[in-house]
Amino acid sequence: MYPNITTPLYRHETGPGDNEIYIKREDLLPYSFGGNKVRIAACYLAHMESQGCNHLLAYGNARSNLCRVLSNLCAAHGYKLTILSPADDDGQQRPSMNAALCRRLGANIIPCQKTGVAQAVDDAMDAIRAAGGKPYYIYGDRTGQGNRSTPVTAYAEQYAVLMEQCLQEYQMIPDAVFLATGTGMTQAGLLCGQTQYAHKDGRIPEIIGLSVARDEAAVTAHLTAYIRDYADAHAGAVDPELAVSRIRVYDRCRGQYGAPSEDIAGLIRHQFTQHGLPLDMTYTGKAYYAMQQFLAQNGWQGCRVVFIHTGGTPLFFDQLMG
Amino acid sequence: MYPNITTPLYRHETGPGDNEIYIKREDLLPYSFGGNKVRIAACYLAHMESQGCNHLLAYGNARSNLCRVLSNLCAAHGYKLTILSPADDDGQQRPSMNAALCRRLGANIIPCQKTGVAQAVDDAMDAIRAAGGKPYYIYGDRTGQGNRSTPVTAYAEQYAVLMEQCLQEYQMIPDAVFLATGTGMTQAGLLCGQTQYAHKDGRIPEIIGLSVARDEAAVTAHLTAYIRDYADAHAGAVDPELAVSRIRVYDRCRGQYGAPSEDIAGLIRHQFTQHGLPLDMTYTGKAYYAMQQFLAQNGWQGCRVVFIHTGGTPLFFDQLMG
Repeated sequence: MYPNITTPLYRHETGPGDNEIYIKREDLLPYSFGGNKVRIAACYLAHMESQGCNHLLAYGNARSNLCRVLSNLCAAHGYKLTILSPADDDGQQRPSMNAALCRRLGANIIPCQKTGVAQAVDDAMDAIRAAGGKPYYIYGDRTGQGNRSTPVTAYAEQYAVLMEQCLQEYQMIPDAVFLATGTGMTQAGLLCGQTQYAHKDGRIPEIIGLSVARDEAAVTAHLTAYIRDYADAHAGAVDPELAVSRIRVYDRCRGQYGAPSEDIAGLIRHQFTQHGLPLDMTYTGKAYYAMQQFLAQNGWQGCRVVFIHTGGTPLFFDQLMG
Repeated sequence: MYPNITTPLYRHETGPGDNEIYIKREDLLPYSFGGNKVRIAACYLAHMESQGCNHLLAYGNARSNLCRVLSNLCAAHGYKLTILSPADDDGQQRPSMNAALCRRLGANIIPCQKTGVAQAVDDAMDAIRAAGGKPYYIYGDRTGQGNRSTPVTAYAEQYAVLMEQCLQEYQMIPDAVFLATGTGMTQAGLLCGQTQYAHKDGRIPEIIGLSVARDEAAVTAHLTAYIRDYADAHAGAVDPELAVSRIRVYDRCRGQYGAPSEDIAGLIRHQFTQHGLPLDMTYTGKAYYAMQQFLAQNGWQGCRVVFIHTGGTPLFFDQLMG
């Protein structure tokens, strides 16, 4: 979907420690309310087509941006889509704009619990086959480990795009690139792309994932697996051990996935009021808050950092209705 | 607000009569959910500041994109904002995301009826002065005729930007530029900008306003007044009679402002499902539908046309909740 469009990058504000914060507006990708998941979903769809499948099986809760974009792509291309949708930790399924969009786009949403996903995947795959479909589960196998290379491709390619944009528009390489990290497919992509990019004069930005749910060890394990699988699939293109050695994860502001926080709500109000920038409670608002905490706690001073706005416009409107 | 950012322009689809439709995504301006009103609101704010005023008075109903952006700008810059908000034709005030955003951003919203606006303006101006404020009414005087030049500035400047983008990215000058037209400040701006732009080889695109509310005669009268006032304020820069002679308005699909239409709802579903393009019932969906009707009814064949997506992301989510 319009893969050649480069989203805006601009100087946003001065953050804690007089650090200059630039923002990369991936939320403005011109497809289905944008976000990093537009690029990632396109990779999944292309892979599904290469496998000769016609029924996509996804997994994601009601707030999932990926499920929304996959629903749009499948509807546009005439593929069926089933979503296994886990309840929140309190057992509830909450309404959301993303879920409403998935339904409008024709997705078949099957509620499930976070325990028992493997069985739910098996059951859904069997049901699709029984109906004559050829299923494609985005996470590969029932344990979620069979297809890690595919989504990593998107931001392995985008790393060079971002660096060239930093150089051409601002004559700089940033000291760090921050982004919200959930399962880590975007961060893993950037790390793989970094090992393939020829940085001049040895200045290499740190890529710092701001975990929205898992602790540092869990995210690191996910990132490591994504990187190794991508390196295996692109033999020789990526030095996986170098990429793994550069993993950086900050998990101190992750809180509970999607759970409210007055600090983060206040940051979201401030960013929208002062800058017209929409953030959300689940991903980007939490991540922006975490970046500010990271800069302050680690004593960064006078650096230039890029925050990748990974999208979630529908989530902004969820909180407006709340 | 980031006035130098040029929004994406891309080939969208082949429309009726094998006409190639390009879309200019002004809805992706990176401020407050974007739209043409971001550029226009910035003109109003700069003019208010030049007048030494500190309390902006706006007029717009619950769906107004302009009121939302003005609320954001005033909140960011520490100005007070009062909005006179007329009820719909049936006397109702309907909830909307734009109105919710205005409230969250601190706007004082005063309900009114479409009859009696002049008195409501007088009363609001008096109340602001009584409270020690210096009011600035965006439409100038109680009859709405005192400040037409200011908003026209935005798209008088953007006309050249759009033409240069057409040339640089697609090596073409389009046969027509279509856009939703309400009061006409954006279309008037484009027409003024066109008389200031040196088109090579005499190929000049038609600028066709797709009326969302008023009939052709009423829109033409508004456009004429906007153009003449802008020309008066920029003596010698614009040939107002040339610009007025180029006014083109298509009003056959205007229906009732904001009222539902199954044809337009179907178009919106189709555009989002097939292209991930968000349109709304009030402005852009109606206008896109009207453009298709215009192309078919007038027998246009094989032309290249640009549709300016003038924004309204919050309106998309209104209809999703409905």
